[in-house]
Formats: sequence, C-alpha cells, structure tokens
Amino acid sequence: MRLGPVSPSTGALRPLTVDSVRLDPGGLLGAWQRRNATATLPHCVAQLDEAGALDNLRRALGLGDREYTPMWFADSDIYKTLEAAAWELARPGADPRLREFVDGTAEMLAKAQHDDGYLDTYFTTVRPELRFRELEWSHELYCAGHLIQAAVAAARVGVGERLLSVARAFADLIVARFGPGGVDVVCGHPQIETALVELYRLSGHRPYLDTARRFVDLRGRGLAGQGRFGPAYLQDHLPVREAPGVTGHAVRQLYLLAGVVDVAAETGDTTLMAAAERMWDDAYGTKTYVTGGQGSRHRDEAFGDPYELPPDRAYAETCAAIASFQFNWRMLLATGQGRYADTMETALYNAIPAAIAVDGRHFFYANPLQRRADHDSANDHAPARRQPWYSCACCPPNLARLMASLDSYVATADDGGVQLHLYATGAVRTALADVDVSTGYPWHGRIRMTVSSDAGRAWTLALRVPHWCVAFTATVDGEPVTAPVRDGYLRLSRDWPASSTVELDLDMPPRLVAAHPYVDAVRGCVALARGPLVYCLEQADLPGGAALADVRLDPSAGLGLAPAPDLPHGALAVTAEAYLRPPPSPALYAEPHAGPPGRRIGVTAIPYHLWGNRADGAMRVWIPT
Amino acid sequence: MRLGPVSPSTGALRPLTVDSVRLDPGGLLGAWQRRNATATLPHCVAQLDEAGALDNLRRALGLGDREYTPMWFADSDIYKTLEAAAWELARPGADPRLREFVDGTAEMLAKAQHDDGYLDTYFTTVRPELRFRELEWSHELYCAGHLIQAAVAAARVGVGERLLSVARAFADLIVARFGPGGVDVVCGHPQIETALVELYRLSGHRPYLDTARRFVDLRGRGLAGQGRFGPAYLQDHLPVREAPGVTGHAVRQLYLLAGVVDVAAETGDTTLMAAAERMWDDAYGTKTYVTGGQGSRHRDEAFGDPYELPPDRAYAETCAAIASFQFNWRMLLATGQGRYADTMETALYNAIPAAIAVDGRHFFYANPLQRRADHDSANDHAPARRQPWYSCACCPPNLARLMASLDSYVATADDGGVQLHLYATGAVRTALADVDVSTGYPWHGRIRMTVSSDAGRAWTLALRVPHWCVAFTATVDGEPVTAPVRDGYLRLSRDWPASSTVELDLDMPPRLVAAHPYVDAVRGCVALARGPLVYCLEQADLPGGAALADVRLDPSAGLGLAPAPDLPHGALAVTAEAYLRPPPSPALYAEPHAGPPGRRIGVTAIPYHLWGNRADGAMRVWIPT
Repeated sequence: MRLGPVSPSTGALRPLTVDSVRLDPGGLLGAWQRRNATATLPHCVAQLDEAGALDNLRRALGLGDREYTPMWFADSDIYKTLEAAAWELARPGADPRLREFVDGTAEMLAKAQHDDGYLDTYFTTVRPELRFRELEWSHELYCAGHLIQAAVAAARVGVGERLLSVARAFADLIVARFGPGGVDVVCGHPQIETALVELYRLSGHRPYLDTARRFVDLRGRGLAGQGRFGPAYLQDHLPVREAPGVTGHAVRQLYLLAGVVDVAAETGDTTLMAAAERMWDDAYGTKTYVTGGQGSRHRDEAFGDPYELPPDRAYAETCAAIASFQFNWRMLLATGQGRYADTMETALYNAIPAAIAVDGRHFFYANPLQRRADHDSANDHAPARRQPWYSCACCPPNLARLMASLDSYVATADDGGVQLHLYATGAVRTALADVDVSTGYPWHGRIRMTVSSDAGRAWTLALRVPHWCVAFTATVDGEPVTAPVRDGYLRLSRDWPASSTVELDLDMPPRLVAAHPYVDAVRGCVALARGPLVYCLEQADLPGGAALADVRLDPSAGLGLAPAPDLPHGALAVTAEAYLRPPPSPALYAEPHAGPPGRRIGVTAIPYHLWGNRADGAMRVWIPT
Repeated sequence: MRLGPVSPSTGALRPLTVDSVRLDPGGLLGAWQRRNATATLPHCVAQLDEAGALDNLRRALGLGDREYTPMWFADSDIYKTLEAAAWELARPGADPRLREFVDGTAEMLAKAQHDDGYLDTYFTTVRPELRFRELEWSHELYCAGHLIQAAVAAARVGVGERLLSVARAFADLIVARFGPGGVDVVCGHPQIETALVELYRLSGHRPYLDTARRFVDLRGRGLAGQGRFGPAYLQDHLPVREAPGVTGHAVRQLYLLAGVVDVAAETGDTTLMAAAERMWDDAYGTKTYVTGGQGSRHRDEAFGDPYELPPDRAYAETCAAIASFQFNWRMLLATGQGRYADTMETALYNAIPAAIAVDGRHFFYANPLQRRADHDSANDHAPARRQPWYSCACCPPNLARLMASLDSYVATADDGGVQLHLYATGAVRTALADVDVSTGYPWHGRIRMTVSSDAGRAWTLALRVPHWCVAFTATVDGEPVTAPVRDGYLRLSRDWPASSTVELDLDMPPRLVAAHPYVDAVRGCVALARGPLVYCLEQADLPGGAALADVRLDPSAGLGLAPAPDLPHGALAVTAEAYLRPPPSPALYAEPHAGPPGRRIGVTAIPYHLWGNRADGAMRVWIPT
C-alpha cells in the first residue's frame, strides 16, 4: 500500500495510493504538474545550492566554509524539495537526477545526524548551545516535521529507506524528550504535528501519535512566552479546544489546524474535531479572500479581524494557501463534505497558482488582490514581480511539493464507490473501477468520463458539484440522469456495466461576485469569476491612455468570453462593459458629488492566477461599479 | 527675545515670543493646555521614574542597579518631558515642582556627560563599544536632538543655563565628528536636523547649521544600509532633493521634512524648499487621513502608496501627527500660505487630541479611523484602549511638549500686521497690537476680537479663513466689512484706532465629506464633519440592539446638532438620518443583490477626538451610504 500524502485510518473518505491517478499534461492540472517536474523542481534543487541551504548541510559535515545562509530554518527548504522529488519519482519516466538528489542528500543527512538522532544544521554549526532551548522561534521541530514528511513521502514511493531511518531516529529523540512524560514545550511554528501523525500512519508506532497529540494539547498555556507579536501570533493564547477562531500568523495557524484534524482523526477526539470545524467556520466565513488567500496583515503575516480583507495589502502568503489546501483535504477526508473540496479548489485555481510565473521559475510570497499603478516596490517588502527565490524561501519548494502530489487530491475511493473531487484530464484507477477523465476544465464545464468496472455489484460514482455551479446536466451513456446531490456530490448509484460513459456538464457562465457588506475594503465593487476561477483586470488589457483606477464596471451589462491575450494554457478571458471616468479632480477630500459616468469601454479580465506575467502595471480583482 | 519653538531668521511670517500669547482655559485649546499642565505633564514625569528612563540616567551616574529599561532610546522620553516642562514654566503660576524636575535632571545629565560631550545612557552603560558605530538604528543623534530641543526651550524661557551647556557640549562633539569635514553618516531617525538649526538660531553658531545641512545632504547615498525594512524606510533611498514623494517610516520622514524646511529657511536653499513643497503635495494630496493622521501601514509604521488609506488599519501614529504639525508650521512661516495652517488645524483637532483620553493620562500610539465590534486586541499590537504609557513611549511626552507650547502656534506678527492662524479664547500681545480673542471655536464659528493698538499707522490684521469654510461674515465695530481673502487669510488693512471690536463669523454647518475616488478603502462611504472637526459614530450612541456595521447613512437627509452625550468641553454632536439594515446573510461571497434598506433611525456622531472615552465598542469615521 503506497499511500499518498495524508492517509488517515478513519474518516468518511479513503485516499488512493500514489500510483492511482495520472494527470494528463493536456489538462491544466496535468500541465501544472508537468511544469513543476520540468521547471520548478529542478529550479528548486539548483537554488538549494545557490542560496546556501545545501552548503549549510555540507558545513555540518565539515565540508566547505560558506557562512550559514540564508535563514536558520533553511533545512526545511531542503526537506520540502526532497518531498517534492519523492512524489515526482512515483511517476514513470521521472528524471533520474531526482533520484540522485534524494539519495545523495539522504546520505549527507545521515552523516550530519548526531548519534542521538538530532539533526539541524543551524543548531549544529552556529548555535549549538541553544539546541532545543528556544523552540518558540528556533523552528527545530518545524524542520524536523518537514524532514519527516519528506521521509514518509520517500518511503511511500519506495525511494527512501535511508531518509526514513534518519527521520525516525530524529522522531524518536523528539518523542523521548517532548513526548508523554517529557518536557512541556510549544514549538513556534507547527508542522511537527501532521508529520508525526503521518509517521505513525506509516509505521504504526503509537508514540508518534501520542507526541503529536501532546503538542496540540500543550498549546494555550503560555509556554511560548510573549515573543515579538504576542502569544496569539503563534496560537499559544488559548488551548486549541477553546479558541473561538483563527488568529495570528496564518501559516502557523493553518498547519496547526491540519495537525489538529490529523490527531482528531486518529484518536477519535470529537472535541478536537469540533474545534477544527469552529475555526474553519471563522476562517472561511470571515477571513478568506475571494481567491482563497488568507492572512490580511503584512506586519505579522497574520489573520486580521473578521471581514478585514484589504485587497491591496492582502498578504495572502503562498504557504498559507497551501496550508489551507492541506487543512481542507483533511477535513474533506474526515467528513466527506463537499464544501471542503470547494475551498481546496478555490485556492488551487487562484491563490496558489498565482504564486507561480508561467515559466515555473519565479514566485510570489505575498499574493495581493490589487496593485496600484504607482505602487512603490522600494517601500514594500512584498515585491511587485515574482522572484526566482527568497531569503526566506518557504514558498517555492512548498509549491513544488504540492504540485508534485497534485494527483493525490483528485479522487478517493472505498468499497461503496469512487468520489471525484477535482476535475482534470487523466485517469483514476481504483480497486472498484477505473475512471478516465477528459475535460477542458476549468476553461470549460463539460467533464467526460469513461467508467470501467468489473465489480459486478452496485456502487456509487460521486461527482462533486462545485458551490459556484447553479445548473448542470449529467448523462450516463447518453441518457440524462437525475440523481441526488448530497453534501456537494452528485451521487450516481447503479450496477455499473463493464464500461459506461458519463458526462457531467457544469454550467459555467461568467458571473459577478459581491462580498459580504461587512467587508469594508471592497464596498461598491464586484469581482468577475467563472467556474472556480477568479478574474482580474490588468492595465495591459485596457485601451491606450485608460488608467485602471478610472474604470467602473457596469454590472447591468452582460459578460462574455474571449481568448485570454498573450497567455498560455488555452486560458479564457471574461469580457465586460465598463465606464472610463475622466480623471477625477485632485482634492483628497471634498464634498460628495457624482462625477460624470465617463465613456463606455469594453474591458477584458484575465484569470487572477495569470496576472503579472506581461507588462508591469495596475491590477485589481475587485472592480468599482 | 524669548522666542518660542521654531524661530527662523527669514520667511513670510515671524513667530512671537513665548510670553506673547495666553490661552484661556475656558476655550478648548486653553483647556487642553491646562489639562496638559495639571495631568499629562505630571503623569509623564512620574512615568519617567516608573518606566525606568530616569533610572537609566541614575545608572549612568553609578547610582542604582535597575536593568536598562524600557528602550535604548528612552533618554528621549526624558528630553521631551524636559522640553514640555520648560514651555510650561514660561507661564506665570507654573507648578514649582516642574522647575525642580528641570534643574535636578539637568544636574544629573551634566554629571552623566562624558568629558568630550557625549551623552547617551544606553551607549554609556550597556553598549559602550557601539558608541557612534551604528547610527542607522542607535537613535543617538535622535536623542541628542531632543536634548538640544529641550535645552533650547529651557534657554528661551530662562530656566536652562545648565541644560544648554550640556546640550552645546554634545552638539559641539557632533559637529566635530560629523560636521563639515567629518565622518559621513545617516542617523536612522531624524530629529538632529531641526535641533541643530534651532541651536544655531539660539546661539548664532554657524557650524550647527552647517552640520544640520550636511545631515540633510548625506541622505540618499546608501550610508544607512539596507536595514530591516530597506533604505526607503529611513529615507536613505534617494537624496532629499530628488525624492518624488514621502515614503517609509512616517515620523522619520516628517521630522526630516521639518529639518529640511529649517535648513532651507536659514540657507535660502530653493531646491531644498522645492523638494519640501513637492513632498508636501504628495503627502497631503494622496497619503493623509481625513483626521490629519499619516502612515497607513502597521508593519513598518510607514506611509503607504498614494491613496492607500485603510481606516481600520490606519497606523496614524500620534508622533506622526505631531511631526506633521511641526512640518506645516515651518512651511507656514516660510510661505505664509494658509493651507499649511489648515493642515495644522486638521491634525490639531483630530489626529492629535484623539491620542489623549479626557483624563489626560491615557494615550493612543496608533489612531485608527475604524474599530470593529469584534476587534481582536490580543492579535493587534495597537491596543484598543488608551494606555497610561508604552514601552516605546515616544508619543505621550511628545504630546506634552506640543500641548505645553500650543500658544506659540496661534499667531504671528511683524511690522505689517498681526496674523491669527488658530482661533482660541485668550490674548495675543504683540509690539503692534494686542488682540483679545473670545470664541466658542471649534464648537461655534463666531470669533470676537478686541484689537488694541497704539501704532498710529496702517497695518493688516490677517484672519485665517479655513479651507472648510465656504461662507463667513466679518464686522469691525459692528460694521460689515469686505476685504480680500488672499492665501487663505482675510486681510483687514486700516489705520486701527486705539481699540476696535472685530467679529469674524465662520459659517459652520455640519457637512458630509467624500474621499477621492482612488481611496479604495472608503468607497461608498461619507464622513461627517463640522468646522475643523471630523466626527465618528460610536456603538455607545446607537439605539439598543443596533450594530454599527449595519448602519447606512442617508446622505440626502439633513444634518443637525446636539450636545455630545457624556462628553466634556461643551462638545457638540452631529445628528444624521440613517438606515439600519437587517443583519446580512452570512455568505462571505455571493451574487450581488441589493438587500432591503432597513428601518430608519437617527444617529449621533461625536467628535473623532473624543472616541473611546466611554464604553468599548465599534467606531467608524467613514460611514457607508
């Protein structure tokens, strides 16, 4: 059983093994996965060398004398890249250099590991006296978590014996020191929780789970101290079971919640699961951008107050969107509720891919929903252009590991049937049936499936009907079918013959989206969307001389479709009617007055995830009306 | 000649000597000055002891062993309080304990001063090896600047011989080390520039001016390095003469601009003055809140992009509003243009006093224009309630020194006449004439002046007509007069008799204010204002059960006046008509739809500067329509 990422032993849905799904590069998800394999992942491996992360490891072996750089938790960049490489190696025809990278790095890690299992190049070579002494900022357990995740991935795809023994030795040290009966600590940056649960799932070794649960339970007792941003920043202000909502550093909060669901799933802890659901309601009901991005504050990379969702200063860190995807996947597995898959899909088609340039080698760290024409990059640590790497390089290899494992999130299956969560051209192989999928999704709403099954008994094919879809038709072998939609899935139950053709046609007109009236920052604006995609206006697509700031959409006019100009992947643009207001008078504050509406123009909106790939200029998702 | 704060040798207007103006506590400015003397200033003196600033000084004398606390630049808290005490001592009947504080502290400072003139308790007792080594963050010259400002104030009111010799010795060391021919440096936090110019004005010693000019000229060469937030944060990204607009840390930028005007005024440097005007246009045309607050980013306490003015996350640091007031006073003196006095007035009646509780002993550091009902203070370093002190205590004693010298900004005079910039009950004594003022300003627009003059020749009484005033009448001895309004001032030129009564009646209806359409964060909202005051809605004034977030103002209905409930100083409230929308459906994003307007209610808005003095709850300046 070569399971994919996240393999709970209980829950409403059962994930597939790693070789169950193939994404065809003719579809968008497959194209992204291919780009990841051919561009992003090799780029990450190269950057580990260039930025210094691998040199830190060599330094720990007494080789080389480059100064420790760039960040004290740069080991995690190595581990995430290892994990990405492992998932990639599960596919036939993977680049053999990836295997060399995995084996060679595992070899170095084994050598760098202390006899007691400890492994952290920063605290080995730079600050040995602080080993395990200041966990609130040290990221030691965060790095350990990523080491474990990489090792679990490598083990699951069968390339990681050496890595797994390194990871287990470190995990055993962590259990001995901080597990039941050990020292009470809070690690400032969650990740160890999910990692230990996954290692438990792989190994069956219960102390890993017990230690993960302990890390969850120890939060909220003030163990992490005040820190620079207060205990809420690292979710140590309240016990997890008592926290009314999400708060503080968004990535930390979301990784923690993923761990909370993992622990709840394995222990049957209903109060913990209830806490996760309560925080989900808060996060996705009041603190999530329409793109799926989260974390509206730059200062502490944190969630803001409910409905505090400024588009211009959206921090919406790439890693937060990935963490949200992971949290929701666990919620989906635990509950089978389509809303979690909807949330995954929103992030997957908007906040997450926006972080990657079309070349696969440049990345955003923050993902704002608006950029003004006169944006002053020099006075903003979130660069206006995607960068090849960051001194804090958490995001690029995190994207790589997600994209490398994207196939694992497409479907689940159990004795009762097969569930399709994400629609992508490719093939799903399960014990019960094979489903070959052909679709232009997300550019088109028609999904054609060939279902081959020799089960010889009734089972249910569950097809997700996304939250944005208000009308659809389904046919089996050309015959229209009506079937119940329950928990977000159209459920086709029957004795499936050896082969059937199923078509699901999701109505996908371009549409206007409004925000809750409490979202002050986008009052009087609408967003354009189609299917799972959120759109934006970019300066590059406006008629010459027109400034984006002067465009007001006419929401009463119809919307249309057109090929997206100068953009890849068969992308479609949404067209709309607007008014181009004459430039306003310069007074910053004045008596209210309705200016002239201006002249009518047509505007072309491109998918948000493709912004910033052409000329620099203004961009906005929320358009004044 | 006991000049007040800021005494340029050239310029369009001449400031008065320190004992020229008396503010009557029956008027609002006088009441504020009285509260400052009786509550804020004694509170500051006590907090210097409690928080540790004075203990740091004792420590430098070998007395006591309390750990250095709270901040490495806490010396500046002492100096600002000394300056406040000095201005207060200019008034008859000042508390004699203030004199003891000034003399006793000056005595300690003289003892703590090194033989070469160096004086900084942190770099004397904690990090002596870093003395003058890391000026980009050390605040050594910032502290020196405040020492000099305090000494100049004390000298001008005649209580500061000791303090002045201490300050001059330090200034001489700074000149020798960093002045012409010395080391090229950029101090990370401006203040030394204005201070050295003022010391030059007091002493006539030219090297102080030359050194100040040098500090201005050395910026923009990258001397300060990258730092945590990049060189724009501390205005080292471009030479002052080339900077197109304001950027970075707002207080630093504004203190620097005050110094730029001071240097330009004393050296006749027109390119420097042009740079100040250009940056003024940028700051006040695109980066200033309707309250006069500045700095819209929490992360680096910085100016945002043009029109980036979120009301909820407005940082609007108290010190920035004070710095803006100081910058504009210098611009006013240099140019005589009323717009600078208008800008001072906006800050003086809104952003600045909002920082002080009605008790005079609690302070805001950040001054947002909106607070949501469910604001999570635990996750926000800007506290929701005014605090008695801060670990970084720059703001409270800065308020104390401004309030103590408030009389100095009311009027100017020269051979050609008297100019009234701020209207407050009290008396202005000049060589040319005495003007006794009686007014209920800013609650009422009528200003009654008794002008007594034995000049025996023609001169001009110039009365500012504020930017918000669209209609006014003026009489002299009961006779209506028409006179030109030039550069923002009504100019009454005549052979004034021995005594005349002048009445200026500024029409002051409550009004609606709209922001420039590029201010995305308040689209679809209006603010309420009257005269120089900006108003806000507070939860406390809404009918029971009504949530502020559900209130929508009816801008077509009339506005009224009423006494402000439970608030001091004869404050008037503005009343308006609104709709109370039923609580909206919970979906964060949905199809646009116009909800029901809701039921009609009356709402009462209080002056913004008085918010947060009653029950905790939601507040907003910008109200949806």
